[in-house]
Amino acid sequence: MQYPEPIAKLIDSYMKLPGIGAKSATRMAFYTIDMPADDVTDFAKALISAKRDLHYCSICGNITENDPCVICADKTRDQSKLIVVEQPKDVMSLEKMREYHGLYHVLHGVLSPIEGKGPEDLNITSLVKRLQDNEAIQEVILATNATPEGEATAMYISRLLKPAGLKTTRLAHGLAVGSDIEYADEMTLFKAIEGRTEI
Amino acid sequence: MQYPEPIAKLIDSYMKLPGIGAKSATRMAFYTIDMPADDVTDFAKALISAKRDLHYCSICGNITENDPCVICADKTRDQSKLIVVEQPKDVMSLEKMREYHGLYHVLHGVLSPIEGKGPEDLNITSLVKRLQDNEAIQEVILATNATPEGEATAMYISRLLKPAGLKTTRLAHGLAVGSDIEYADEMTLFKAIEGRTEI
Repeated sequence: MQYPEPIAKLIDSYMKLPGIGAKSATRMAFYTIDMPADDVTDFAKALISAKRDLHYCSICGNITENDPCVICADKTRDQSKLIVVEQPKDVMSLEKMREYHGLYHVLHGVLSPIEGKGPEDLNITSLVKRLQDNEAIQEVILATNATPEGEATAMYISRLLKPAGLKTTRLAHGLAVGSDIEYADEMTLFKAIEGRTEI
Repeated sequence: MQYPEPIAKLIDSYMKLPGIGAKSATRMAFYTIDMPADDVTDFAKALISAKRDLHYCSICGNITENDPCVICADKTRDQSKLIVVEQPKDVMSLEKMREYHGLYHVLHGVLSPIEGKGPEDLNITSLVKRLQDNEAIQEVILATNATPEGEATAMYISRLLKPAGLKTTRLAHGLAVGSDIEYADEMTLFKAIEGRTEI
């Protein structure tokens, strides 16, 4: 015996989401049937709207409803600094800090030979062009993740930008605030000692 | 800075699913934006269809597109046995076994004083009525979960049915097939010894 078709299809759709296997998808599908009808309708509308109304900003590559995005359109922001991140959600994390008021550029991934992702698959060409066209930018802060792929991507971009004489910086590595030395891994400790500062 | 509204709404919708917090919902929402448009449309349609086209069978309470459900409508099934389960997905698990060909009754929950769930919140009245109206049923197999609430619910129903002189049975407790005694908990071992059979 099979599940009735409507629920089988819903399970299939849930299984396409990242980190969701057959068991979780089934649980979610049965849960959906018991949800208020309005919530389900809103959910369906939100799916359609997210896919239809969101685009990538033609300048920075961040997701946005309007092109250019609010950050690129805001001329009161510091036009001399640009942070390069992997994903749109990284922009959101940095904005939550409320301490940075410059620009962003979203790569949409990292260099990954294993996954066959080269520089041409990332938003790198548009970054180089943006820096050539926009002389106000004086510092590029590479904020890719502290993973091997993130490091390699930051290294690649910094070498690409060096001939232009731009100041290129990388986020500091070290102990997370509030973390215990006991639980820090060797590489993090090494980076924390290497990057120690005078107090 | 907030997320653009379409993605904020989608994150809210994902967060209504069981076991999904803010981080997972955000990851799923960004993933959705990168999914093929057809998949997203199918997902939205599946949500609407699951909520609109699925109903509970008026006889057994299982989810179904047509009323009565395929199991209740199938007169070739053994009309003398009835398994009582907590949820529609339990019916599916038992059907996968392909060894049982009788009927089902879905309670849609268990007795839970903590959650304020009493007998009137479950499909128990309809079970009693069904057993009164249908004299072909000779055995009621209580297949609620082996949790305290499941046990209490099975006990409650068996007491309710006793005056009618119906045969009421409970699924066996013991070691799962393929499991190690080493990892079994005390209660399971106790039940396994208590329910030992001659070989």
